[in-house]
Formats: sequence, structure tokens, C-alpha cells
Amino acid sequence: MTTSTPLLLADLTGVAVFAASGASAAVAKRLDLFGVVFVGVVAALGGGIFRDLVIDEVPPLAFADWRYAVTAAVTAASIFWLHPQFARLRTTVLVLDAAGLALFTVTGTLKALDAHVPAVGACMIGMLTAIGGGLGRDLLTGEIPVVLRREIYAVAALAGSIAVALLSTYGVATAGPLTAAAVFVFGLRLVSLRRRWSAPVPAPRPPRTGARGPQV
Amino acid sequence: MTTSTPLLLADLTGVAVFAASGASAAVAKRLDLFGVVFVGVVAALGGGIFRDLVIDEVPPLAFADWRYAVTAAVTAASIFWLHPQFARLRTTVLVLDAAGLALFTVTGTLKALDAHVPAVGACMIGMLTAIGGGLGRDLLTGEIPVVLRREIYAVAALAGSIAVALLSTYGVATAGPLTAAAVFVFGLRLVSLRRRWSAPVPAPRPPRTGARGPQV
Amino acid sequence: MTTSTPLLLADLTGVAVFAASGASAAVAKRLDLFGVVFVGVVAALGGGIFRDLVIDEVPPLAFADWRYAVTAAVTAASIFWLHPQFARLRTTVLVLDAAGLALFTVTGTLKALDAHVPAVGACMIGMLTAIGGGLGRDLLTGEIPVVLRREIYAVAALAGSIAVALLSTYGVATAGPLTAAAVFVFGLRLVSLRRRWSAPVPAPRPPRTGARGPQV
Repeated sequence: MTTSTPLLLADLTGVAVFAASGASAAVAKRLDLFGVVFVGVVAALGGGIFRDLVIDEVPPLAFADWRYAVTAAVTAASIFWLHPQFARLRTTVLVLDAAGLALFTVTGTLKALDAHVPAVGACMIGMLTAIGGGLGRDLLTGEIPVVLRREIYAVAALAGSIAVALLSTYGVATAGPLTAAAVFVFGLRLVSLRRRWSAPVPAPRPPRTGARGPQV
Repeated sequence: MTTSTPLLLADLTGVAVFAASGASAAVAKRLDLFGVVFVGVVAALGGGIFRDLVIDEVPPLAFADWRYAVTAAVTAASIFWLHPQFARLRTTVLVLDAAGLALFTVTGTLKALDAHVPAVGACMIGMLTAIGGGLGRDLLTGEIPVVLRREIYAVAALAGSIAVALLSTYGVATAGPLTAAAVFVFGLRLVSLRRRWSAPVPAPRPPRTGARGPQV
Repeated sequence: MTTSTPLLLADLTGVAVFAASGASAAVAKRLDLFGVVFVGVVAALGGGIFRDLVIDEVPPLAFADWRYAVTAAVTAASIFWLHPQFARLRTTVLVLDAAGLALFTVTGTLKALDAHVPAVGACMIGMLTAIGGGLGRDLLTGEIPVVLRREIYAVAALAGSIAVALLSTYGVATAGPLTAAAVFVFGLRLVSLRRRWSAPVPAPRPPRTGARGPQV
């Protein structure tokens, strides 16, 4: 998966973008240099580490190939110093982030299918590969994960992973259709951003007390 | 473990109940539809995924058998729309939740013992199978896990897992005694709820400053 | 690694110190007895469990050898009752904690190298072994991990793990040099504490709105 140079470059681009995302959130929380790098690395590599643990590819690629960690750490450290400039690049970053989302979805789902995970599980793993880093970033910075609260982000990843699983089921998971699936995730994410699409939120409930739910 | 139809049905009932618990907490936090389903799935499957990772059953059952994910997701999505009615079923839900706790404790401990984990470790894994999903739910919704704060919940699971380990040590971990262990967890949980039993809390400490403890 | 009696004793001392750290944080949050023990056990064993999962040593040592869990649980339970006295031992505890940090860094890095993880990954795993428990403690008690915010703590671990990896690369990872690496981590941590060294924090950014960063 990561041996071919173009795919490795694409993968590392995704890593860098997610690292910038994590570092940026850490800067906003006034973490120190180590904290900024750490949150950046978790945002960049967390999803892939989870994916590799559940498909039993150990040690996870993030630990086995130093280029991943170095890319993530260097990017995050840059954000520590360059964050004012970085904040101005917001649109560029959102586009790159959508590309990272698309790429991690497709490669995550494929790796799970290659590891003989059935289709439904592979779709879950693909989506978690794409959103797992962002979840870790938000947990470390004391936020309810933003991916659970608004916009079409994880849903785009889930749709893409389903597309990949279908392509694989019908034996057409070759370069062309897989690229189309990645473009689909990328496009869905960007269109959602531009049109401010978001998932529905629950209807308000009258009594707030005792609303916590069953497990106590 | 999950091949026999009655046990699978029981397992999926536990999954559904925990999914409802997670979805309900997510609705209370006003997460969107995706967030409600995601937290529900984590609450339902998180404990089992952790269990399978530490006993090296990969891919975890939650990814290998689609019925788990679908049961969790459909239940959580239903709560998104039906939460006002669901809130009224509070007593029913607490009873079902206690049943889920009992079942996950017994099956989790057994699976760990089957994977040749020694007794103390198997008890920890059994308890974590039962409470892990609730921990994940609370972390995702920005709460200090409720299981750490009040009531007899994890302690009931721990007592049950010790019972299962003892049964196994004495070679009587057959259907009858195991069912008795599950009923014991179920009963202990329900009696604790009704009598408002809870674990003790620490005595107040006079000086609050510097109370954080050693690791800095 | 843990078969030799002196090393096992050292390891269990580290476990006890980290358990006290976790329990102390849980007492400060007014968790109940179970919560105090649970957070203590996570603080003591969390880093090692993560390490063992990523190097595929399953079940993790924390579940395979009962002495780890019992040491952690008994220590944490003691803190529940003795926390006022414990708070007075603050300096002693900080010194023991630095010793635990040093030890977990060295053994974590070595175990990863033994499992054929390349050097960069082994350094990451060694550092995560040392700080992972503290991360878990802070997430469970609703805090942004303190290790990300101030002081030289994780950085000392990282420096030590790099030293171990270098020793291993040059074939001199024997008892003497490894002890020196541990003493280096221990000393760096204590000197940082005494001199109040800390990692730099980011420069303030003028506009706060939209500062959240790329991934949404």
C-alpha cells in the first residue's frame, strides 16, 4: 500500500495535514511545544494506529516506518511557530484536510479488506482510520469531538468506505475506481462545507432531569 | 461463544441496550445524528473491542460479525428519533442495562480465560468488557465516567468476573453455574439501584492546593 | 525483562508510584473508592498495556502477571484512605515518580527494540510507555493531560528513549549504559522540577475566532 512512491507521498501529505490540524488545536489551547507536537502526531497517526491494531498489523505502520512520525512531528512543530500565518491559510487547509480524509478512508478500508475483515467491519475501520486522529486530538484538548457535533465529515468517510467495499465485492477495486471513490469523498466533503450541509440534530426534549439514559 | 442462537440473541440484546444508553447520552449533549449513532456504537461495542484486542482475537468480533454493528447502529438511530418515549422507559432500560452488564461480564471473563489469560487478568478483562463501552461513551461526551463516581456498577461486574474465574478454576464453569453468576451480577446491580447503595467517597481533605499528586 | 528479581522489584515500584499518582488525582476529583482504584490502576498499567498491544505481546503483561494489578490496586486503595498523609509526602513522591518515569522509559524502549520495532518507533513507544498512564489518568478525570501543558516530563522520557535506542544501535545496550540512561532521565526530570524548566508555549495569536484549525 505504501511502497509505491506516489501513494506514499499522498499518504504523507495526509499525515502532514492532519498533524497541522492537531497542532493548530493544541496552539489554541495554549499547550507547550511538546503538547503541540504530541497532539499533532496523535491527530496524524492515531487513526492509522487504531486501524493497524484491529487488523493485527503490528507494530503499526506509524511505529514501523519513521517517515510517518517525522513528517507529523516536523509539521506540528512548524505550526507551533507559524500558526499566525497558518490561520490565514484556512481555505487551503480545509481543502488539504478533505484530501487527507478521502485518502485515509480509501486506504484504511482497503487495508481492512486485505486483512480479510468482512465488508461492514472494513467500512467501520476505514471510517475510523480517517476520523480517529481527529477524535484523539479533541479528547486530548478537552473537547467533545467536533466530528460528532456538526457538518458532513465522518459521513463522507463512511460513504467512501462503503463505495470501496462495493468496488471490492464486485472485483473492480482497481486504481481507477478507487481514485473515483477518493474523489467522491473529497468532493462530498467540500460541497458540504460550501453549502453548510450538516447532519440533523435531535429534537429538543422537554424535561432535562434524568435524561442521562440507562447505564449508570 | 456466540455461535449458539440463544447466546447470540442475548449478546445482541446487551449490544442494543448499551447502544441505547450511549445514544441517549449523546442526545442529551445535542450531538448530531452521526454523533448519536457513533456514541451509541462505541458504548455498545467498545468494551468488546478492547477485550478482543488484549486477547488477540483480531479482527475484533465487533468488526468481524456485521450483526453487532448493525444492531448497535439501528438501535442508536432509533433513539435519535424516539428519545422522548425512551426517557419514559427508564426503569425498563435500567433493568435491561443490568442484564447487559451481567452478560458482558460473564462472556468477557470466559473469553479471556479461554485465551489463557490468568485468573486475575481475566477478571480485569471481564469487568472492562462490561464497563468499557460506558467509559468510551462518557469520554466522548466530555464527562468524567459515571462508573467511577457513584453506585455499584463496575463492582458488580468485578464480583461476577471473580465468580466466573472461581467456577473455571474448580472446573465447574458449565451452563448452570455461569447462569447463576450472571444472575448474581444482575441482582446485585438491581438491588444496589433500589437501595441506593454506592461505594464510599474519600474523606474531604483540608488544603486543596498542591493536591494534584505526584506525576506532573 | 521482568524475570530478574531486582528488575521486577523496580518495575513494581514504578507501578506503585504511578498508581499513587492516579489515585491522588481521583481523590482530588472526589471519585468513589472504585473510581480511585480504577484511575490508579490505569495510571500504573495504561502505558504498559499500550506498549504491549503495539508490539503484539498479548495478553499484555498487566493482565498476564497478577503482581502488577495487585500492586497497583492495593496502592491506589491505600491512597483512598491515606491521602492526607500522602499529600505531605509530596517531595518523596515526585522523586519516586521521576524514578518510575526513568524505569518505564528504559524498559519500554528496550521491549520495543526487542520486538524488532525500528529505532524511531521504539523511541515513541518507550516514551508512551512512560507517559501513557498519566495520559489515561488525566482523560478519566476530565483534565487536559498535564504532560502536554508544562514542565519537562515527556521530553525527559523521549531523551532517555533516544539514548537507549542509540546504545542499542551501537551494540552497547548492557546493564551499565542502560542504568546510566535511566539515571539521565531521572536526573533531567528532577533538575527540571527544581529549576522550574518548562517547554516553550506558543506566542499569543491576535484573533481567537476561527482559530480551531483545519479538520472540522
